[in-house]
Amino acid sequence: VADFRVGILGVSDTRSRGEREDETTGIIVQALERAGGFQVAETALVADERDAVEAELVRLCDDVGCALVLTTGGTGLAPRDVTPEATRAVAPIDVPGLPEAVRVQTAPSFPKAWLSRAVAGLRGPSLIVNLPGSPGGVRDALEVLLPLLPHALAVRAGGGEHGHAGHQAPVSGVPTLRPEPGAAGGEDA
Amino acid sequence: VADFRVGILGVSDTRSRGEREDETTGIIVQALERAGGFQVAETALVADERDAVEAELVRLCDDVGCALVLTTGGTGLAPRDVTPEATRAVAPIDVPGLPEAVRVQTAPSFPKAWLSRAVAGLRGPSLIVNLPGSPGGVRDALEVLLPLLPHALAVRAGGGEHGHAGHQAPVSGVPTLRPEPGAAGGEDA
Amino acid sequence: VADFRVGILGVSDTRSRGEREDETTGIIVQALERAGGFQVAETALVADERDAVEAELVRLCDDVGCALVLTTGGTGLAPRDVTPEATRAVAPIDVPGLPEAVRVQTAPSFPKAWLSRAVAGLRGPSLIVNLPGSPGGVRDALEVLLPLLPHALAVRAGGGEHGHAGHQAPVSGVPTLRPEPGAAGGEDA
Repeated sequence: VADFRVGILGVSDTRSRGEREDETTGIIVQALERAGGFQVAETALVADERDAVEAELVRLCDDVGCALVLTTGGTGLAPRDVTPEATRAVAPIDVPGLPEAVRVQTAPSFPKAWLSRAVAGLRGPSLIVNLPGSPGGVRDALEVLLPLLPHALAVRAGGGEHGHAGHQAPVSGVPTLRPEPGAAGGEDA
Repeated sequence: VADFRVGILGVSDTRSRGEREDETTGIIVQALERAGGFQVAETALVADERDAVEAELVRLCDDVGCALVLTTGGTGLAPRDVTPEATRAVAPIDVPGLPEAVRVQTAPSFPKAWLSRAVAGLRGPSLIVNLPGSPGGVRDALEVLLPLLPHALAVRAGGGEHGHAGHQAPVSGVPTLRPEPGAAGGEDA
Repeated sequence: VADFRVGILGVSDTRSRGEREDETTGIIVQALERAGGFQVAETALVADERDAVEAELVRLCDDVGCALVLTTGGTGLAPRDVTPEATRAVAPIDVPGLPEAVRVQTAPSFPKAWLSRAVAGLRGPSLIVNLPGSPGGVRDALEVLLPLLPHALAVRAGGGEHGHAGHQAPVSGVPTLRPEPGAAGGEDA
């Protein structure tokens, strides 16, 4: 069984300059390992600069060929928080229910979750999902998202009714994504 | 009491080619009949092609004069799923709470509901709402939406504070929509 | 402790013409007073005209220097309801969780809350949040929002990791906003 390739992008001025330890990447790596079915292809850190975030997202999707890119940080209301805008710019097909699920399901125990401006979007065969910047926020968000991601990625890669290879627009230079075999189709959602 | 005119548009490659039976239209017709106050003006099936979906939505709103158009299918993450983008293109005034309500209220029993990219939007006097493509998903979504739709349509047609005829921009060539008399106004929401 | 400057904008044809009493502004003023930490800098009423709503929002943010602008009304499905579109046009940085929180948390007791098209957005250092047009709707929405707003405004004004003054793009002619000292940072959300 081939695993989904995952890229992890930490978005933070202080973490990218090494002024603060990046705990979130390690938390995600461990959670994906425990869940199974994922292979972390690359991790990166970048400052809260929209152009830089967009460039890294494009690279992780198009060059590294990640089926899933998880970002951490930059989703709040601070003046430097630009991760949602960068994500939307490179992945314009909105998947609103994923950040909605995180807000709705984590807010009962952490009301500030309502302030997250996180988005999720599709870029060709790749799904990008914004996570919070704090270790606790990442853990909470993954608990909500991990049960949903394998099906989401399998459908995106071509499982289900719409999944015949001929239907998928070829994206030149993109490595083949490897879905879980047997994953179900797109008519459920 | 005149009823709201409803159009039902199934969006699916296999259903539009007759390769798979379309169960969802019948489910909607029966649910609207049971609820009362609706008149199904037309049903149609179309492939998962954005241009074709947009053209059918425009036709059902502007030519057939539907106050409500319900779509089924094409709202997932599969490469061919384009219903939300087609809907947004022809009905740009967002009504985010309707798909939000469906996701939030159906996810407890069907977590994959979070993966629905369904949207709802206004096109002049018409409301378009995306439903899932599976029979069970349609049933669940209607259970959430049906109690909300009569009030929504009455307000859109001109009930309430903002509803004086003089306020509503005339749309040439659009048949008159028939709201439920006595429905309440727009200041509640 | 300096307070956050707040502008309150009632959006309503009948209230702006004096044909109906505006109860919502008084409700907001009292709720902010009880909560503490806010200073109402200005209140205004405007008709349901998109240009006029946009102009008032810009004035309250840029000229009056409000850290927070709360609107009431114009968020439903009536043909004259344009508050969300006006807000989005002048405050394009989306804060989706705030209206989501109001819908999700008030709908159990008032299902029509799902029909609210309210949005929240950032315009430079200012946060604009749409509230319903009815007195009861305003009360319900404030109950959800008031616990979240002080942290949101403090982060926006420069609290937390991203909050160093040098990071914030200067907006010429905007009076300095006064956050609550000691408010926490942007990495939580």
